Amino acid sequence: MTLRVGVVGGGQLARMMIAPAVELGIELRVLAESEGMAASLAATAVGDYRDTATVLAFARDVDVVTFDHEHVPQDVLGALVDAGVAVRPGPHALRFAQDKIEMRTRLAALGMPQPDWAAVTGRAELQSFLDDHGGRAVVKTPRGGYDGKGVRVVSAATEADDWFTALAEDARGGALLVEELVDFSRELAQQVARRPSGEVRAYPVVETVQKNGVCAEVVAPAPHQDARLQEVTARIGVGVAEGLDVVGMLAVELFETTDERVLVNELAMRPHNSGHWTQDGAVTGQFEQHLRAVLDLPLGSSDTAHDWSVMINILGGPLSDSLDARFAAAMAEHPAAKIHTYGKDPRPGRKVGHVTVSGGDLDDVAYQARAAAAFFQD
Amino acid sequence: MTLRVGVVGGGQLARMMIAPAVELGIELRVLAESEGMAASLAATAVGDYRDTATVLAFARDVDVVTFDHEHVPQDVLGALVDAGVAVRPGPHALRFAQDKIEMRTRLAALGMPQPDWAAVTGRAELQSFLDDHGGRAVVKTPRGGYDGKGVRVVSAATEADDWFTALAEDARGGALLVEELVDFSRELAQQVARRPSGEVRAYPVVETVQKNGVCAEVVAPAPHQDARLQEVTARIGVGVAEGLDVVGMLAVELFETTDERVLVNELAMRPHNSGHWTQDGAVTGQFEQHLRAVLDLPLGSSDTAHDWSVMINILGGPLSDSLDARFAAAMAEHPAAKIHTYGKDPRPGRKVGHVTVSGGDLDDVAYQARAAAAFFQD
Repeated sequence: MTLRVGVVGGGQLARMMIAPAVELGIELRVLAESEGMAASLAATAVGDYRDTATVLAFARDVDVVTFDHEHVPQDVLGALVDAGVAVRPGPHALRFAQDKIEMRTRLAALGMPQPDWAAVTGRAELQSFLDDHGGRAVVKTPRGGYDGKGVRVVSAATEADDWFTALAEDARGGALLVEELVDFSRELAQQVARRPSGEVRAYPVVETVQKNGVCAEVVAPAPHQDARLQEVTARIGVGVAEGLDVVGMLAVELFETTDERVLVNELAMRPHNSGHWTQDGAVTGQFEQHLRAVLDLPLGSSDTAHDWSVMINILGGPLSDSLDARFAAAMAEHPAAKIHTYGKDPRPGRKVGHVTVSGGDLDDVAYQARAAAAFFQD
Repeated sequence: MTLRVGVVGGGQLARMMIAPAVELGIELRVLAESEGMAASLAATAVGDYRDTATVLAFARDVDVVTFDHEHVPQDVLGALVDAGVAVRPGPHALRFAQDKIEMRTRLAALGMPQPDWAAVTGRAELQSFLDDHGGRAVVKTPRGGYDGKGVRVVSAATEADDWFTALAEDARGGALLVEELVDFSRELAQQVARRPSGEVRAYPVVETVQKNGVCAEVVAPAPHQDARLQEVTARIGVGVAEGLDVVGMLAVELFETTDERVLVNELAMRPHNSGHWTQDGAVTGQFEQHLRAVLDLPLGSSDTAHDWSVMINILGGPLSDSLDARFAAAMAEHPAAKIHTYGKDPRPGRKVGHVTVSGGDLDDVAYQARAAAAFFQD
């Protein structure tokens, strides 16, 4: 009997599950937000993921439901569970990815290293946190942020007034998250895969470079590691996966501080941009691994397949020609570059693809990847 | 504008083009022989590839037509060309893959090394060839053979009587191909990619092991190579690709003789079983390379991505349980094995998938690949 995985959300993460699903003989069914999305080839339904009836109907004919994003509301997730659908990761795990205050609270209970933080409900509490942390801090809306949205560095409590006003008008009410501004030397990411039966595999820790709040580049494994870095980050990743009962892929975004601590920044309970290098640079790509994990199949090796891999995101700028027109030039100059596209219309700042190059020499690999990706940028 | 490739034939070769097509943003359209075939996910039409109107209608909305197999009749191919469709490889190349006597004649004209051969139209001519070659020879029907079908070792001319009778009844008439029984030490295969503009890339030569006329195992690169083997086989592969004006992937199956000559056995003008290892073991897999080549995009690197890769075919035996049931056991024991399935019902001797393992130690790689594949065999 063919195994069937239902993916809620039709973006590029669902799209990149298609290739391993075909090879493994898994039937992928996607509930897309609209026609013509990145994962349209596998879209068997189009509808609103916030509508319980829509998602329930979609889930009827699959063995497990998983996600392209973490935005499916808890009441919809709960209805799936009540109907006997296998939901992976489950609602009890996803709420930590959906609400950053819940995440911080839970990670604190688990003893995970993280920046100083507080949940603040008004200007006075925020100012108090600022006063205790050198007058500057990061304020985040607990819900709905991504790629730098919903994140603001403030040096006065008044700079969050609009968010407090919005919160007061939101029926859910609640607080803003404020975090210390971490003096980090670089950002890292730790991918972990975990299946319901408990098997867990940690990938090599990678270095991520953000530009304007968006992941621009990933170097795998993270270069210049001291002896204990991989051990520390893998322990954090596995600890978070187990402590939050995550099933599937988990990405833990980390700060490495100038005093050599590692602090948890953000979580993603799905394949993540910081793990795209695994498609070409690891024995088992994160999209295959996610499918294995949510189906409770044995996990694949998370070892690197090459000494070094560098992944560069392609952001759609104000293009005068189509993405396709750049292909031939990039391919001709960089025959070892692996080019991945998302089938999306280019728009400024939008992720429309990525390029990965792997090999034995980091300088050469990084040069090739950046040069190949540059063909697609303005 | 999205590039569109139309593939005639819905088998596993078309299926394995889906993954690279999705990643490269190429729209793949498949004309399948029937519903539910291996490439059904990409099937946009179902119909008879021998029917000109069906194939013409399918070809109307694609940028180039290519093939899952070489069986599309010349009159259908000619109608496509007449209609202005880009057909790659073209009819003038495909006829050498469709008729083994035409192939032998053309290779002889190109000076390619091949077994002694003759086109024989009756018992007397065949007996004469036998008498000249030690009393035994290989007789082949020039058309329609594959995986050992249409091939017979004979030691008396009467053993081909039924084929001569069938030929006499065939409107096309014609001859049988007879070839010397080559005293080979092993079989090799040379993959070559070529695009219309002339760019050509040769893959590392591989060793193939046949069982009952069907490819069972491929070791890449071919072990125990003397200094000049790769040079010789690449020159043959490129020479055939250019001499026959092949576009796309070409596989040249070769005999390595006990006296260290290399002779051309068979040709395939498409991705080929002997090249499946490239999906996991080369920088550019043959299915991606075929798409690039037929679209006249620059070719990807044909370098190995690992020191060694071993591919084992999974043949569907008289199974008591489904293929899926074997997945978990194989995956659990061999986390580095790359498992590929074709979505076909298992039948005795039918290719239903393959397993590839790559790594630095050939003995270990071969052991892992064979052991993983064994989970799927009876």
